[in-house]
Formats: sequence, C-alpha cells, structure tokens
Amino acid sequence: MAELSVLPVKIGILGCAEIARKLSRAIHLVPEDVSISAIGSRSASKATQFAAANGFPASAKVYGSYDAVLDDPDVDAIYMPLPTSLHLKWAVLAAQKQKHLLVEKPVALHVTELDAILEACEDNGVQYMDGTMLQHHPRSAKMREFLDDKEQFGELRSIISCFTFAASPDYLANNIRTKPDLDGLGALGDIGWHCIRSILWAADFELPKFAVALPGPVLNKAGVIISCGASLHWEDGKTATLHCSFLENLTMDVTLVGTKGTLHMHDFNIPFEESRAMFSTGTNLGFNDLSTGWSLKPSEDAVAADLPQECLMLKEFSRLVANIKSKGAKPEKKWATYSRKTQLTMDAIKESVYNGFQKVDIVG
Amino acid sequence: MAELSVLPVKIGILGCAEIARKLSRAIHLVPEDVSISAIGSRSASKATQFAAANGFPASAKVYGSYDAVLDDPDVDAIYMPLPTSLHLKWAVLAAQKQKHLLVEKPVALHVTELDAILEACEDNGVQYMDGTMLQHHPRSAKMREFLDDKEQFGELRSIISCFTFAASPDYLANNIRTKPDLDGLGALGDIGWHCIRSILWAADFELPKFAVALPGPVLNKAGVIISCGASLHWEDGKTATLHCSFLENLTMDVTLVGTKGTLHMHDFNIPFEESRAMFSTGTNLGFNDLSTGWSLKPSEDAVAADLPQECLMLKEFSRLVANIKSKGAKPEKKWATYSRKTQLTMDAIKESVYNGFQKVDIVG
Repeated sequence: MAELSVLPVKIGILGCAEIARKLSRAIHLVPEDVSISAIGSRSASKATQFAAANGFPASAKVYGSYDAVLDDPDVDAIYMPLPTSLHLKWAVLAAQKQKHLLVEKPVALHVTELDAILEACEDNGVQYMDGTMLQHHPRSAKMREFLDDKEQFGELRSIISCFTFAASPDYLANNIRTKPDLDGLGALGDIGWHCIRSILWAADFELPKFAVALPGPVLNKAGVIISCGASLHWEDGKTATLHCSFLENLTMDVTLVGTKGTLHMHDFNIPFEESRAMFSTGTNLGFNDLSTGWSLKPSEDAVAADLPQECLMLKEFSRLVANIKSKGAKPEKKWATYSRKTQLTMDAIKESVYNGFQKVDIVG
Repeated sequence: MAELSVLPVKIGILGCAEIARKLSRAIHLVPEDVSISAIGSRSASKATQFAAANGFPASAKVYGSYDAVLDDPDVDAIYMPLPTSLHLKWAVLAAQKQKHLLVEKPVALHVTELDAILEACEDNGVQYMDGTMLQHHPRSAKMREFLDDKEQFGELRSIISCFTFAASPDYLANNIRTKPDLDGLGALGDIGWHCIRSILWAADFELPKFAVALPGPVLNKAGVIISCGASLHWEDGKTATLHCSFLENLTMDVTLVGTKGTLHMHDFNIPFEESRAMFSTGTNLGFNDLSTGWSLKPSEDAVAADLPQECLMLKEFSRLVANIKSKGAKPEKKWATYSRKTQLTMDAIKESVYNGFQKVDIVG
C-alpha cells in the first residue's frame, strides 16, 4: 500500500503543555500511525526535560523555539497545545510551511482568527483538526445509531450539557485559562467548548439560530469567565442549555431528550475508564398503571474502546494526512466545519455574557 | 396513646381524577393512619363507579356533589385532586368547614389564590399539605445528609432539573392540563411544579431572587404552556435551570452540583421502582494523572422504601391531623411554606414566559 510509505506521520509538538503529556503517551500507543519527530519550546531545557519525562524516542529533535519545529523537514504535522492567543500566529505559519495541523481547543479567541487559520490550511492544502476527542470514541458512533433511529429516539428536542470542575486556588490564580492574554475564554473556552461540541454533535452540527447567556456568570478580576451558562435555540424549536464552571465538583453530563427516547452520559468528554464507556438510553418510557413506578426503565450500554480516544483521534488524523501525502487526496473539511461551528457558538455565548444576556444571533 | 383514638384520619375525596386512583390505593395500604370515608363527584354514578373500581370500603359514602362531602361530619380531611381552577373555591370552603386539606398540585393558578386558601386554613386551624411526594420518600432524607455535609458536598452551586413526558395526541387535545379554564398552567403547573419543588428542596427552600424563562416555550392554540424552560438565580450566585415538556420522552432528572460534590437522580418524582430508589453521588472527583480517566467515579446509593412515598405522605399528613385533633397542636406550617414558595417561583416563570423572557423578581 502506498500509504505505508508515508506512515507513521511525523509529528512536531509546539510547547510543553500539560495536555501534551497525554498526547505524547497516545502517540507512543499507535506507533504505526504517528511518531514524535520534534518538540519545540521557548525554553530548550524545558523541552529536553519534557522529552525525557515523556519517553520521546532518541530520534526526536528538541528545539528551543517553535520556528525550528516548523522549519524541520522531518515534521509532517504539528500538534499545537499552545495557549489560544498564540494559535493564530503559529497555526498560520505552520500551514504556510505545509505542516498539517492538530490544534488544541479552544482553537481561537474569535472566529475571525479561526478563519485565518482555516484559510491558511486551505491555501496550503494541509489537513486541519482540533483536539476534541468526543467524536473519536466508539461510544459516539454507537450513540449516533440510537439518535438516528426515529423509532428509538424520534426527533431531538432538548440537550442539557454540564461540565464543571473544582479548580484549585493555584489554578484560579495562575492557570493560563484565567488570563485574558493567554486563554482569555476561560471556562467557556476550556470546558464550555466541550459542552458546545457535545451539543452540536447531538444536533448533527446544525447551527443554532441564537444563543442567550444566563444571568449570573462569574468573572475573575481580569474579566475572564470562570463560570457561566447559556441556552441555544434552533430554527425547529430544539433547545439546549449548557453550564460550565471552574468552581464546582467535576461533573460531565450530557442529556439528550427526543420525542421518543432519552440518552444520558455522565462522562461525555473523558470516560470514567479508558477501556470502555457507558451511556444509558430509554425509549417510549412511561409509568405503570397507577403511576407508582415506571413500566420500563432506561438501560445501560457499554462500548469497549480498544484504544484510548486520543489514539483514535491520532489515527484518523494520520489517515487523512497519509491520504493527502500518498494519494493526493484533498484535506477532509468536516473537521474544520465542526471546529468553526463550535467557535461560532462559543463566540455568541461569550458576546451574550458580556452584553447583559442579550440574544446573539449565530450566523454560519 | 391519645392519638390512637383519632386515627385513622377519615378522608373525603373530591372528584374522580386519575391520580385519586393512586391515592386510594395508598390509603388502603396504611389503614391504621387513614381511611376513605366519602367521595363526591358532580356525577354520583361516576363516584359510585370510582368507589367500586378502587376498592372503597362499604362504609365509604358516595355523593353526587362536593358540598355533601364537606358537610359530612364523618370526614376529617379532604383530598382534593380537582382541576386547579376549582381549588380556590373548594379548598377555602373545606377549610371553613374545619376539614384538613391535602391538595393536589399545582395548588393554585396564582399565589393570590393560594394565599386565600392558606388564610382560610390558618383561620380555621386546619392542616394544609400539597400532594407533592418527593420530600416524603426516604431517599430525600438520605440525599439531604449528603447535601448538608460540607466535606462531601460543599456549597450548592448549580441545580439542573428536567421533567418531560410524551403526551398522546388525545392528552394534548383533551386533558385538563391543556385547558386554560381548568389547569391553565399546563406543563409548567403539572411537571414544572415538580422541577421547581426539587430545586427548592435542594436549595433548602431558600427562595431565588429572580426567574428568567428561556426562549422557545411551546404554547398550544389556547395559549397554555406545553413546553418551557427557565433559569433561577439566588442571592449567593447559585443558579438552577429547569425544563418541562409534554412533547418529549419521559425524563425525570435532577442534578445537583456543589463545590465538592455532585448528586444525580433520574427518577426524582416517581422512582423507577416502589420498593427502593437510587441516587448517585461523587465527592472531590478528578482525573487520573494524564487525564485519561477519572481517579474516582460517582457511586450509587439505593434507599429502600418500606411503603410507597404517597403512603408516607399520608402518614405524615395524618400524624399532623391527629396531633391537632387529639393534642390541640397547631397545624404544621412548613408544608404551606413549601407550597407557597413553589407557587411563587412558578408564577414568576409563567410571567417571564408570557412577558418575552424578561427577568421576574421573586418576592416572598
């Protein structure tokens, strides 16, 4: 197979973010698909330390700059877990240097930035994907079967998504996600992003018509969102609510209610366990004769995952890159579309948070 | 014991509503506490049929009017499952005739009506309780222990409550809950009431400062709410969202998120099974080192119920009535307070639904 010659896709990592540890492990788990060929940090010693601590192969190059990674001909693709405020510059530059792009979320501070990144990818024929893992887990495909089944689920009417965690005082004081100049989208960009993505996924990526932030967001002294909620509204009357917060115990729920069925997840973004993930479903639920109990109860499904979801993401990314490199295939655009719709929805919620909870139209 | 002489409390039922079947069974299950001594319907034959179909004792009187039940000296207390629009007239009259009152929800079309009912109860020294069962289930006491534990749950921050069911076309066309002149509060009064009650219960009945309805409510042609959502906001920054709908598969969720703990229920108002009820909790949840899974998972608790929750409600009601009758005790006011706060919150949401989703203050 022609593909074999271009696999594994050689990945260069920009920065030594915490999440790059998780991705480094994942890369090691699928050596036939991807390999780490370089890492760059503004601090060469930090990069050296990171490479050693995360089992990088001896062949992986360690650079004291991001530029050096982009200039390395031995790098096919960039994994970019940099603070969001740096994405525009470095993602555009990477694309211009013909590097395929796997960008951590939130991908941009505003859709105008994302559009510049996507345009650079398009102009240079490189694959774009964001680092959201949800859709790569086999659970998602299994749930999709249920949601698409008109007899089992009917029409989607309501989506409720909640992702919170209790950040430490140190995190709240120092993490980049609390800093306007780094990840200025705060909790909305970090965990709200996942809520939005889960909602859009459930809605088959039909864009809501408008968003309304709920009263009572919590902003830190620098004005960054630490906690907020919003509702989303579609043309057909579907609605979604989401809540994201750095101030509450780890909770990670998605509830989907259709005319005939209901689906629950309590670990939608990171499953409780790596090897399998659960969801519960119920169809045509009702009460018994005297309404003293339910005639049917929801049932649980378990979906085995042979590989962690981040490995599956890497496999899909490398497959697309390999197709481009070996077969002259065009980049797969759907991942850019998913990213852009997530960003548009996030931008609208953010605007509503800051404009006094006014309705903000979402225009694709 | 003095109480024994006044027990069982003799109950007269007004009307032959569907839910009265459930309550009739419950009365039969706790014969030492309550007994059915009369039923009245505008149609004597309907009442006769109902009494026969629901195993009423031969001693139970069957009347062709509500008045006759209220005038029966052999009736201590009225169970009132009438359409809400009739509550004001009949509940006030019952109280004036010294009958204790167990009133189905929604208890009134507006708090001004409820206040008239509560005033009549107060003036006549009779016990008032509404028919909401949630708080009578032993699960609630067990969950309360968790919520009150500052180490396990911390401070309550977010409440999400969702109660929907897929009403049949016949229900949507003909049920009293779709008729402005009968149960004009529609889905908000029927199942939204339970969402609100669950939320207030979770918040220890601290009244929210204000309510905001979410865009996108569904009204029927007569203007009755068939589906709606809202958010509630407290002085301390706590928020709640609720969603109620007659147009979606049966779903009955409460999620409570505190600074340290999370609690989930999926059958909060009517447990899946009569004999036990589940809830899940998690404290200080977090991810493992690489965030590839959770270091701790939520755990499930099962609470056995020796009696159905409606029996426990009847036992509590009869205990209070017996205390009044035998010991000259004063009526227990907390049940009126719970009812009134539920009503105030519901009224505010309704106002917001109809005023274009403006913020509506809730003033106790």
